[in-house]
Amino acid sequence: MLRFYNGKVLTVNQDMEIHTDYEVWVEEDKILYVGPPLNSKRGLEEKSKRNDIESYEEIPKVIFEREIDLNGNLLMPGFKNAHTHSPMTFLRSYADDLPLQEWLHQQVFPMEAKLTPEMIYEFTRLAILEYLTSGITASFDMYVEPEANVGANVDMGFRTVLCGTINDFKDTIPELEGFYKKYNQYHPLIRYQLGFHAEYTTSEGLLRDVADLAHQVQAPVYTHLSETEQEVKDCYQRYGKSPVEFLTDMGMWDYGGGGFHCVHVSEADMDIIKEKGLYVVTNPASNAKLASGIAPIATMLKKEIPLAIGTDGPASNNCLDMFREMFLVTALSKLREQDASACPADVVLAMATVGGARAMGLEDCDCIEKGKQADLIVIDLHQPNMQPEHNIIKNLVYSGSKQNVKLTMIAGKILYEDGRFFVGEEPESIYEKVEKFQVKFKG
Amino acid sequence: MLRFYNGKVLTVNQDMEIHTDYEVWVEEDKILYVGPPLNSKRGLEEKSKRNDIESYEEIPKVIFEREIDLNGNLLMPGFKNAHTHSPMTFLRSYADDLPLQEWLHQQVFPMEAKLTPEMIYEFTRLAILEYLTSGITASFDMYVEPEANVGANVDMGFRTVLCGTINDFKDTIPELEGFYKKYNQYHPLIRYQLGFHAEYTTSEGLLRDVADLAHQVQAPVYTHLSETEQEVKDCYQRYGKSPVEFLTDMGMWDYGGGGFHCVHVSEADMDIIKEKGLYVVTNPASNAKLASGIAPIATMLKKEIPLAIGTDGPASNNCLDMFREMFLVTALSKLREQDASACPADVVLAMATVGGARAMGLEDCDCIEKGKQADLIVIDLHQPNMQPEHNIIKNLVYSGSKQNVKLTMIAGKILYEDGRFFVGEEPESIYEKVEKFQVKFKG
Repeated sequence: MLRFYNGKVLTVNQDMEIHTDYEVWVEEDKILYVGPPLNSKRGLEEKSKRNDIESYEEIPKVIFEREIDLNGNLLMPGFKNAHTHSPMTFLRSYADDLPLQEWLHQQVFPMEAKLTPEMIYEFTRLAILEYLTSGITASFDMYVEPEANVGANVDMGFRTVLCGTINDFKDTIPELEGFYKKYNQYHPLIRYQLGFHAEYTTSEGLLRDVADLAHQVQAPVYTHLSETEQEVKDCYQRYGKSPVEFLTDMGMWDYGGGGFHCVHVSEADMDIIKEKGLYVVTNPASNAKLASGIAPIATMLKKEIPLAIGTDGPASNNCLDMFREMFLVTALSKLREQDASACPADVVLAMATVGGARAMGLEDCDCIEKGKQADLIVIDLHQPNMQPEHNIIKNLVYSGSKQNVKLTMIAGKILYEDGRFFVGEEPESIYEKVEKFQVKFKG
Repeated sequence: MLRFYNGKVLTVNQDMEIHTDYEVWVEEDKILYVGPPLNSKRGLEEKSKRNDIESYEEIPKVIFEREIDLNGNLLMPGFKNAHTHSPMTFLRSYADDLPLQEWLHQQVFPMEAKLTPEMIYEFTRLAILEYLTSGITASFDMYVEPEANVGANVDMGFRTVLCGTINDFKDTIPELEGFYKKYNQYHPLIRYQLGFHAEYTTSEGLLRDVADLAHQVQAPVYTHLSETEQEVKDCYQRYGKSPVEFLTDMGMWDYGGGGFHCVHVSEADMDIIKEKGLYVVTNPASNAKLASGIAPIATMLKKEIPLAIGTDGPASNNCLDMFREMFLVTALSKLREQDASACPADVVLAMATVGGARAMGLEDCDCIEKGKQADLIVIDLHQPNMQPEHNIIKNLVYSGSKQNVKLTMIAGKILYEDGRFFVGEEPESIYEKVEKFQVKFKG
């Protein structure tokens, strides 16, 4: 058992209150106790109100494997990266500052065609290292070759929800169904959600087959949705409807799901999204860097659409940093609405934590609460960018940085602490393998 | 003497080439040598071409106080924060998510009225700590009470160019002239540039007096310029001209200078800015967070206007992080132009280094070259966000982070290394003083 004490605790459970007198106990992969120290007066009162541990009498006998003195720092739920393509680390800084179509067709697609499962394994491992530095404890990862991706995650102890990416060029319905069944039974750190790449890469027939599969297994479906203006125009031309309308009408979302990006959605689209209970996963850095636009997050908030945040892949972002994304969500919304009060900090922080967890179906990893998975991070408040402590939530969203991530824990295991990684292999060895594969590419 | 070796060197002198076989020697506050190791064949060839050190025969006798093995990391010039209000750390996360006018009049101004020089001293020190973590080696700092500000900088060994902030409510022409003369003779780390707060806070008479002073001392003048749409509209109403036209016509910029923000400038304004040789210092995070807009950086680049980057003050940003600013400069330009190729990485990096130095008159701190001030930083490339190393310049701008800053040196002195500060006082002690002043404010 492990104990965090002498710090501040943000549970993100119901509200954004910072508890200065809480401690947290972790037993194996789960949170066992959250509340005031049990040997304090307040702890005893709390204890009488609820039944957080099995028996108070047992407490004096508890032996902790490790007690972590938070030293006034903040313990909070890990960030959830609700849309990414982890293996695309190999394309970081390979083809930037290019128009979107040229980037995709002349750089990304030809490079991706050369990938092997061994490469995907190493490239995913590089992304996982970066997630850990940013306090990200789970990814919603859309890419081909799930076996290699899953291997990287399991071997390093990282949590991922794979997302189907079927389209006209890759995978079949039986394969998608196979993945769905296999990876939801595979390992406690791995789950799988149905998904397809996008309306514009998937024929109507195949889309209807995906919708049928969703009905058959009664599962939500996820996809790239209305990322660019052109994509929406083309869909109107093909089907006389927006992508949201078209996919909804064929029953794609009768069991829920969500859309990645959703930059170019109309009021009517948003009403449908709300009605179907779909999640919108926003990717502000990618949408800016590829000049796709700014998603109407403020309007979505007014419509009470559930929201989450993703970094998108490192080819289009190029970094996997939830702090940068959080600032961009609010800053770009303020620009779009011409209103400095748009999209306040507490809302953004909820999107990056509990929102992301729920979007990807990780309800047991969403907040700090007894029985939930111990996917936790420690934020160093003893850094100049987090001082003074007027408002820790605003500090996190407006001035927080990867530099403030002191510790990242997934399923009760510390994978990153004070700049060191505990993932079964030294980063340098992963960098070298990635570099070796790069040379092959360029050759 | 100090030696950096076994790394990569980006001099930002003329081009953005990364030299993998260079080393750099620092003698007191200056760079003494940049080039291949002098005991290598290439070093000898270089040596015969130029006269970088006094005598090659002396080399074997050189005793270095410290030799820093860069271990493949990147040595480059420090970032220059070309517009900030350092003491405003006290307002970080105090009043965000508010409309601009409410923020200024109900939160910022009443708080500022309570400031004492002792507070300004401590609040500036907090900002300096943060600059160091982000690899910033000089600030162009506009605030009242220069004596307190200067004290903080000198005491910590930080370099600053103070900028006058005269307006109808603060300072007189004799005071401004006094500051200009005093602080340009005060200390090697301190300089002073003429400046006024803004056209909208300064009467025409006083502006003409500032312009007269500029003529008298033959110096450039800096100011907040066309930050908001309203400000430009009001100026048209008052004077029938844009702020750029109005100030140019009164001879404000006959000896050069620059404008901070410049979000709402017309084509004609930009032509004047170019013609007068003025610097534009862009502040993308602040302009986004306060919903002021996106500056037309791509157009300015086409017009070859010299550009620099500033964080603005921590009340409006809220963090003092050049990596975030660099990403925003390019990402927001891409959005504004609807062109993913707008404002490429190498241009942005030049703005953040050599551009900033020149904008604030620090020509001797702009790049890594013999005789220049040793204002240097080391970037940790052994982090997942900087791998693979396809293109280090793009990595810096698109995925770089404060977390990558390993070392910050100003005038030959290491002030920050591997997360530790060497500024004469422990950060915790500065945080405590800042916090104590906060309590007074709230009371």
